[in-house]
Amino acid sequence: MTNWIDIDTYAKAWMKEAGERIKESFSSKLTIQTKSHQNDLVTNIDKGTEQFFIEKIHEKYPDHRILGEEGFGDTLNDVKGIVWIIDPIDGTMNFIHQQRNFAISIGIYEDGIGKIGLIYDVVHDELYHTVKGNGAFINDLKLPPLTTGKVKDAIIGMNATWVTANKRIDPSLLSPLVKDARGTRSYGSAAIEMAYVASGRLDAYLSLRLAPWDYGAGIILIEELGGVTSTMKGEKMKIVDQTSVLVARPGVHEEILHNYLKSGNW
Amino acid sequence: MTNWIDIDTYAKAWMKEAGERIKESFSSKLTIQTKSHQNDLVTNIDKGTEQFFIEKIHEKYPDHRILGEEGFGDTLNDVKGIVWIIDPIDGTMNFIHQQRNFAISIGIYEDGIGKIGLIYDVVHDELYHTVKGNGAFINDLKLPPLTTGKVKDAIIGMNATWVTANKRIDPSLLSPLVKDARGTRSYGSAAIEMAYVASGRLDAYLSLRLAPWDYGAGIILIEELGGVTSTMKGEKMKIVDQTSVLVARPGVHEEILHNYLKSGNW
Repeated sequence: MTNWIDIDTYAKAWMKEAGERIKESFSSKLTIQTKSHQNDLVTNIDKGTEQFFIEKIHEKYPDHRILGEEGFGDTLNDVKGIVWIIDPIDGTMNFIHQQRNFAISIGIYEDGIGKIGLIYDVVHDELYHTVKGNGAFINDLKLPPLTTGKVKDAIIGMNATWVTANKRIDPSLLSPLVKDARGTRSYGSAAIEMAYVASGRLDAYLSLRLAPWDYGAGIILIEELGGVTSTMKGEKMKIVDQTSVLVARPGVHEEILHNYLKSGNW
Repeated sequence: MTNWIDIDTYAKAWMKEAGERIKESFSSKLTIQTKSHQNDLVTNIDKGTEQFFIEKIHEKYPDHRILGEEGFGDTLNDVKGIVWIIDPIDGTMNFIHQQRNFAISIGIYEDGIGKIGLIYDVVHDELYHTVKGNGAFINDLKLPPLTTGKVKDAIIGMNATWVTANKRIDPSLLSPLVKDARGTRSYGSAAIEMAYVASGRLDAYLSLRLAPWDYGAGIILIEELGGVTSTMKGEKMKIVDQTSVLVARPGVHEEILHNYLKSGNW
């Protein structure tokens, strides 16, 4: 039988070690490349960090599969067995411009079911973690369950992109949400924004374009605390897909989905 | 002759003391009230912190005047003499929802000229500080001058409010900026966002509605580093006015002002 506590212990130790390496890299020069488009950036540190995790996992758990942002892991056509979904640096643009506000994100799934969610805000040394069913924590602090809320009292994590002309959604759908909510924020790291939803610092977070490594850990943390996760059409996420994401405390999720996103009819 | 180094030393010591008191308050219950509208919040901690500064300043510098967000200071009709412009907690909504991402902001002016700029990110224990002409720092780290940049490489601090229907600006003016910039962010504290511009983590920050206590310290820091500050119409700020604010590294300021804000013709 799988020892999840063991896996969790190793994953956390590797995250801390990777975090130290990333911090050490601040004093050296980055090699920055673009990927799919001019603002999709990757550095030698993203790549090296992913390779570090892959080596460690292969050595300790040779039968586990790995889906990593930088593509050094496996190509997955299904979600069978134990799969690690890794973003070595979520928020690479922040990493380059700010040397902060980025995170390592690791979600570990068994047959498509989230078992371990880990988001490590390296610079602030805050590790958000859960082993499904055992509660969720920031470092040693246990997080309380997410209570039900309303949009009018909510701070919503969303980027201005989604209320201006873009390829994925009519900006008039979400514009009224900006007005009706208490406020909006945008931090530039989906993992940190989902960790903020888990810890109640944001009441919701949404994005039209996320990959599994962006949300793989976050949804496990949020669900552990009673938060609601879906695509922006209200569907359940399949962890191998690029998709839209809407995560929120109860009440706020339903209100955004029904009143602004027309229950997915767009 | 005024001893600015002395004033700076006292101001910093009082900020650190106030920061400790604010952190201690995290474990006690907040009293939250609304001000001008339902999302304009103030707490007993905002008020107590402002009163703390006023007592200290009155005792040490009885001839200095004080303009504070919570209104316990002086009513100013002019900018003569030495004026402390204080926001005891900039980012009160973050303070309430997140217990982070807020700052104490103090700008000290003489006859309307900025002399000392101090922004203290309490939770992250980062003090951004300058005495005009002596360089700007984060804690003990000297900040380099701001180099010239371009919008296409820039991360812009701006809230989604300004690209959706609002009372102050046609959202179609700034919408193209969201598309053309490398990215946008919104942190919910003007003081922190201006400290981010000073430290190069953001390349620009803009808002249509700021009060002197929101920007009083930030513009001193940014100008000390060679950044450009103005209203969004391109005018110089008068420190007693509520106004729009556009602050940026050189190049980016000019590009936003001319290409998006039509040099103020709106």
